[in-house]
Amino acid sequence: MAPPYNIYEDQCPARQVLDRLADKWALLVLDRLQKEPVRFNQLHRDIKGISQKVLSQTLKKLERDGLLSRCVFATVPVTVEYALTDLGQSLVQTVNTFAHWAELHMDAVLLAQARYDGTV
Amino acid sequence: MAPPYNIYEDQCPARQVLDRLADKWALLVLDRLQKEPVRFNQLHRDIKGISQKVLSQTLKKLERDGLLSRCVFATVPVTVEYALTDLGQSLVQTVNTFAHWAELHMDAVLLAQARYDGTV
Repeated sequence: MAPPYNIYEDQCPARQVLDRLADKWALLVLDRLQKEPVRFNQLHRDIKGISQKVLSQTLKKLERDGLLSRCVFATVPVTVEYALTDLGQSLVQTVNTFAHWAELHMDAVLLAQARYDGTV
Repeated sequence: MAPPYNIYEDQCPARQVLDRLADKWALLVLDRLQKEPVRFNQLHRDIKGISQKVLSQTLKKLERDGLLSRCVFATVPVTVEYALTDLGQSLVQTVNTFAHWAELHMDAVLLAQARYDGTV
């Protein structure tokens, strides 16, 4: 029996989820939430280069897909904290391995690039 | 000692690699090559919705980063086959788990979306 969802099909909803997750900002947000819930401002500080607007859009997208939860505390000013849901937890270890792969293999990637570009 | 590369830094070369890999087409190409080398035309047929131009750009990008190799056979017409390198092999299982996660968890994602949108 064919599986009900197939990422190789362009109209499949699973392909659309893959498209939303296959985004460096989404991966960095999920990775950053792996160990603990984090406030919006902290995420903005830790993920260098992300704008407030893009961070906000990324968080909404991940919340809508059920990967993270948003918790509002009635402090002054209001504090908003994000945490992985169980669904998010089911993906985060894979995200972690994927996102940090480049750090571990960067020397090999740089060497391959230099070979490709003909500079070594 | 701090690791030499850090994906949270926007100027780090590892962030740039993550940015190139965090792309649904790159993920689908790597995933499709997991079991065997595949020709350009076969990739184009199997990955529904990808244009020849985008497939070509994606393959070049992955080849430059050292994740796949390109082999040209002197048939008429010329046959071009792509295969994972050892570096690509070191990432492909993670890519496979990540890319297919949506297929396995699609029902939960759809339910979360409906809740978020207020339609259930």
